[in-house]
Amino acid sequence: MKTKLVSAGLAVALGVGAGYVVNAFAQQKPEVLIGQRQGAMKLIGKYWGPLAGMMQGKVPYDATVAQRNAHYLEVLAEMPWDGFAESTKDSQEKNRALPAIWAEPAKFKEAADRLRTTTANLAKAKDEGSFKTAAGEVGKACGNCHDNFRSK
Amino acid sequence: MKTKLVSAGLAVALGVGAGYVVNAFAQQKPEVLIGQRQGAMKLIGKYWGPLAGMMQGKVPYDATVAQRNAHYLEVLAEMPWDGFAESTKDSQEKNRALPAIWAEPAKFKEAADRLRTTTANLAKAKDEGSFKTAAGEVGKACGNCHDNFRSK
Repeated sequence: MKTKLVSAGLAVALGVGAGYVVNAFAQQKPEVLIGQRQGAMKLIGKYWGPLAGMMQGKVPYDATVAQRNAHYLEVLAEMPWDGFAESTKDSQEKNRALPAIWAEPAKFKEAADRLRTTTANLAKAKDEGSFKTAAGEVGKACGNCHDNFRSK
Repeated sequence: MKTKLVSAGLAVALGVGAGYVVNAFAQQKPEVLIGQRQGAMKLIGKYWGPLAGMMQGKVPYDATVAQRNAHYLEVLAEMPWDGFAESTKDSQEKNRALPAIWAEPAKFKEAADRLRTTTANLAKAKDEGSFKTAAGEVGKACGNCHDNFRSK
């Protein structure tokens, strides 16, 4: 089992390292990269949703959920970006990435870094007031990137 | 934009809380839960792959990648399980979950907890030797769960 598992792991491994750590792995297939980055976005949606509700007062503020989800979001905010490799630009795989991602890489990186920064700040929020302020900035970071780099 | 974003967030929010924090959100649609848990598994594969390669000596040990990925895995290992809600058992959505997940919930929880424990231990590994030992335990946790709860 171990051998089989490791082989599967290696097949998955090949695209990692396009982000912030340079290493020796070859390039992963575009459809795998797209699946991984969409997976990250789905999880960001999963853990952001309740916080958006709390921010708007539609559900009661729950410090335990808020802090747990904010921590998850901070970590998840590191994960989508190397999935936007140039190799995925013309993929037939269903996805909503706009060409602007590759036409304006500095602007895209800035938008990605904004999610990192705002989720890190959210994870530091210690009470309902600072949580709501910080969550507002996360929401704007999501919206800013989706407005510019995701199709409607 | 903010309002639109928040509404989208709320739509995503409704299934959260089936895990370890009880809260007031209603149940999410089965297909959304399946997409989220598959997203978590894809990301676990993404960050596990290079570590499996290092464990086997197929790629050189890189402490920076090893520690970063191990940290990611520890956090990701918290995320799939509430996606296996009973409501997803008979979903027509493409997935490989076996009925044993719901027939043997204690055994499934034990298998899930084993991934949590072994990835937490991996994140604590400080040198190549302890990394390889801990990675072996992670690999066995993956294999154990897939053997018993995922279709071939």
